Amino acid sequence: MRKEAIHHRSTDNFAYAYDSETLHLRLQTKKNDVDHVELLFGDPYEWHDGAWQFQTMPMRKTGSDGLFDYWLAEVKPPYRRLRYGFVLRAGGEKLVYTEKGFYHEAPSDDTAYYFCFPFLHRVDLFQAPDWVKDTVWYQIFPERFANGNPAISPKGARPWGSEDPTPTSFFGGDLQGIIDHLDYLADLGITGIYLTPIFRAPSNHKYDTADYFEIDPHFGDKETLKTLVKRCHEKGIRVMLDAVFNHCGYEFGPFQDVLKNGAASRYKDWFHIREFPLQTEPRPNYDTFAFVPQMPKLNTAHPEVKRYLLDVATYWIREFDIDGWRLDVANEIDHQFWREFRQAVKALKPDVYILGEIWHDAMPWLRGDQFDAVMNYPLADAALRFFAKEDMSASEFADRLMHVLHSYPKQVNEAAFNLLGSHDTPRLLTVCGGDVRKVKLLFLFQLTFTGSPCIYYGDEIGMTGGNDPECRKCMVWDPEKQNKELYEHVKQLIALRKQYRALRRGDVAFLAADDEVNHLVYAKTDGNETVMIIINRSNEAAEIPMPIDARGKWLVNLLTGERFAAEAETLCVSLPPYGFVLYAVESW
Amino acid sequence: MRKEAIHHRSTDNFAYAYDSETLHLRLQTKKNDVDHVELLFGDPYEWHDGAWQFQTMPMRKTGSDGLFDYWLAEVKPPYRRLRYGFVLRAGGEKLVYTEKGFYHEAPSDDTAYYFCFPFLHRVDLFQAPDWVKDTVWYQIFPERFANGNPAISPKGARPWGSEDPTPTSFFGGDLQGIIDHLDYLADLGITGIYLTPIFRAPSNHKYDTADYFEIDPHFGDKETLKTLVKRCHEKGIRVMLDAVFNHCGYEFGPFQDVLKNGAASRYKDWFHIREFPLQTEPRPNYDTFAFVPQMPKLNTAHPEVKRYLLDVATYWIREFDIDGWRLDVANEIDHQFWREFRQAVKALKPDVYILGEIWHDAMPWLRGDQFDAVMNYPLADAALRFFAKEDMSASEFADRLMHVLHSYPKQVNEAAFNLLGSHDTPRLLTVCGGDVRKVKLLFLFQLTFTGSPCIYYGDEIGMTGGNDPECRKCMVWDPEKQNKELYEHVKQLIALRKQYRALRRGDVAFLAADDEVNHLVYAKTDGNETVMIIINRSNEAAEIPMPIDARGKWLVNLLTGERFAAEAETLCVSLPPYGFVLYAVESW
Repeated sequence: MRKEAIHHRSTDNFAYAYDSETLHLRLQTKKNDVDHVELLFGDPYEWHDGAWQFQTMPMRKTGSDGLFDYWLAEVKPPYRRLRYGFVLRAGGEKLVYTEKGFYHEAPSDDTAYYFCFPFLHRVDLFQAPDWVKDTVWYQIFPERFANGNPAISPKGARPWGSEDPTPTSFFGGDLQGIIDHLDYLADLGITGIYLTPIFRAPSNHKYDTADYFEIDPHFGDKETLKTLVKRCHEKGIRVMLDAVFNHCGYEFGPFQDVLKNGAASRYKDWFHIREFPLQTEPRPNYDTFAFVPQMPKLNTAHPEVKRYLLDVATYWIREFDIDGWRLDVANEIDHQFWREFRQAVKALKPDVYILGEIWHDAMPWLRGDQFDAVMNYPLADAALRFFAKEDMSASEFADRLMHVLHSYPKQVNEAAFNLLGSHDTPRLLTVCGGDVRKVKLLFLFQLTFTGSPCIYYGDEIGMTGGNDPECRKCMVWDPEKQNKELYEHVKQLIALRKQYRALRRGDVAFLAADDEVNHLVYAKTDGNETVMIIINRSNEAAEIPMPIDARGKWLVNLLTGERFAAEAETLCVSLPPYGFVLYAVESW
Repeated sequence: MRKEAIHHRSTDNFAYAYDSETLHLRLQTKKNDVDHVELLFGDPYEWHDGAWQFQTMPMRKTGSDGLFDYWLAEVKPPYRRLRYGFVLRAGGEKLVYTEKGFYHEAPSDDTAYYFCFPFLHRVDLFQAPDWVKDTVWYQIFPERFANGNPAISPKGARPWGSEDPTPTSFFGGDLQGIIDHLDYLADLGITGIYLTPIFRAPSNHKYDTADYFEIDPHFGDKETLKTLVKRCHEKGIRVMLDAVFNHCGYEFGPFQDVLKNGAASRYKDWFHIREFPLQTEPRPNYDTFAFVPQMPKLNTAHPEVKRYLLDVATYWIREFDIDGWRLDVANEIDHQFWREFRQAVKALKPDVYILGEIWHDAMPWLRGDQFDAVMNYPLADAALRFFAKEDMSASEFADRLMHVLHSYPKQVNEAAFNLLGSHDTPRLLTVCGGDVRKVKLLFLFQLTFTGSPCIYYGDEIGMTGGNDPECRKCMVWDPEKQNKELYEHVKQLIALRKQYRALRRGDVAFLAADDEVNHLVYAKTDGNETVMIIINRSNEAAEIPMPIDARGKWLVNLLTGERFAAEAETLCVSLPPYGFVLYAVESW
């Protein structure tokens, strides 16, 4: 066995409490190198006749990526304490893997050899709101979704959809526009909306906040927001706002004070200022978001700034009953701030959703003390490369997803915010080179996978556009210009996701990932239900073998309702180019 | 190159802020598999002509264990932000290792490939008190150190040292006894004392607290403690107390209330009670330390308990100016509690030392938000096996230490509490089978290694005893019965540690670890000074080659003061059985 590939550490994705009584222990081994793994475990204080009392249980392989196999054991220790190791077997070889290294036989004279999960505390549990697992999100860029109140549109706002947006153009989208189209969202099946920033700010995107306690007057007022949240809640739709706490806008009062009073400003420590007077050329001499002078970075370790921002965070929950905060540039703010943020908002509304914008590996924010989820860009990246750009093979895609899934505790994956695109990325149809069939596959994948999916406004009707500002065009409301077939596809998949618990909450397993035909078969199962998703990601019709023994099972085509009993040992599915099918597998 | 051995993750021991401007990035590769590694890095927002702007710097190998080589780069990013990857070379082969996997060439079209350290925040920095690195600790079990006030000795206390202790015996040791012997400690060179619990408790060890706000009357009173701390501080000795917060004693007021009033007690939620009435047989039906009914586990997630214990923690700092808390069974208390604990005590005394009792891998407590250090039992275990029990070879020993050192950020190692024994383990001389030469090697190793060393009372004069209660014998004050030679050895090493910064704060490198002769050579260097430690861990005299080219250097024997210029290319050192020597290496 390849020892240098065998890895475990008693933390993070390798050892965690899944719920208040269950521990998950995971092991990594070299791919196809180990036949069988057992968890060796016991209470740290359970001794008999000078020997530590342990037992064993088999671990199951939960997936593989390009290099590794991953194994899982689930244990419910009666006293919530655990010492443990791993017994690995390959051929005739046996290895016992402990915190102190490898042994041929399991030592029992001392528990100190073993890994330790010292105590399962509910208060330390990573626990995202349960509702998130059942939610289908819809991201709205308010300036571009709908103009419901032309009276408050910015001066010079262009007629709706009359032209392509520039970085500085306005079209008058507002909160009333969202309220006016809630039926549309409800028809689609949406159960959560995420609004990019709505607080007072000069830009159209409003990531340059001037006042965190006011609704931007071009979007509406506090009453409009109250109405929006109320109407949403009546329809079973949750509302998430965007918290831009890494930096403020140039017009933010305290920053203006520093500009005016320099080193004498009582707000000078609210920012990270390298020297006075402030300069913006050649680069700002104060920290900013990226190198953007208009976005001065806030000093979130300063007690007053912290107090101010936590007041903001709690104000909009307390007074407006919002259901979640999406945290802009969350990775560049200190962990200590986020810990206090979590305490503050969860104290007020325990099931509020805390979603961080982090594009990279985000384990340090997902240990239970900070976020409930991050925006799953690694998943989006892999999906776009496989389905849209076709520069990733089926096996690479499956490997990539398995790698990401095994990088986090299971419940982290279950609450992950699975987007495919956003106001920061090109539109799906554009990335797909205009091929709607590929967009359909992307939605199919997104809406059948583990996590909390989010649709970027307009992608469901085939809107197009490259990078910002093109991806921020006005929502198309003319039915003639909407791709209704795509809309119905998304709507049907959302309905299936609601109908089949396995699609929302099941475990995922890749059953086939074929690099020649370019097909992919995966199953979602929750123990009761199993749904198989079969995808032909190629421009040619394909006969795809079903990699299960379906004898004794009903197969129900979820798109057509057709139902048949599989009697042959091997089944094949004929799929057109970029075709797909979903089968529920039921016992006779 | 062996891909499955190559590992990095942007957290913990692999990526951390070493100080407020320096990031450490580490990489693991298969041992002897990679010739050369470079860090590829840049500011995440530094673009030019559509290409991300990165640079490279070589990484240096900081050590190896049985399976892996470890590489380090130190970077000071001007904007405190970093994206990075690794360029590995072996023979003609080149690999670029990123968060998304391996490439042949470094991609520059997107930073999303790369690992990310998004922002270096001082508030998130792991920062142990600086003084700890220069401290030599002395652990005192107060009931057995010295009886300074016989008037308060427990009834039935045995005459000092008149017999071996039993689990329940008393000898009358007290705080005045410690005060009386501070000159002894100062002569030895001690600069910190750690006292096992001193609060009111029925047992001799006092890990079964009855009242956290009172000094045990057999140990003294609050005035005695005040005097003790004052006298210590006058002599430059810091004082650390033992916080037993995982569980209380049976006599603790709130637990007595629960025993009396059952489910009606207002304290019932202070504990983890499974059912009423409370029972202790066959096992307690409430959570305890191990399965000890006299030690009911406290519910540290309960707001009142938390408030109570944080009041305890701050009270003894505020009123008595203690310098550290050693946290008993720290791993079985929730992380949330420890985060609040850190906030509370550091707010009061920023350089207080927080030391957790954790015997296993303790990364989750050493991320900057909880402890400053843990008791380094993995180091003690390896040292005892190599020097005392001789069931570990020199190379295994060096591998084991390198493994432990590379499991933590560098500054964690620098503050680690390096004990060799305690009130919970057999005495050094006993583990060494009575061979004082081995005990000397153990002290030599401990007092020259990285971390904050701690001597268990009496080990420095050759006291003996197996496991508890034998290791808790009365301190021997009769000079005739003290091993003065051992004492002088320890004293000399402490003095050298104070004299040579490299010994306290230098980096360690193993230069030789020979399994045939069983010798070990390591160097400590801080950039200015280098000290070499050469050890013959065998029962035969040995000629040990010095694994450095010492031409052009002065070698100063630190034990004798002898000084010679090395002119030969290879030098050998003759050492008697279990002999050793320390050389300072100085340039001509």
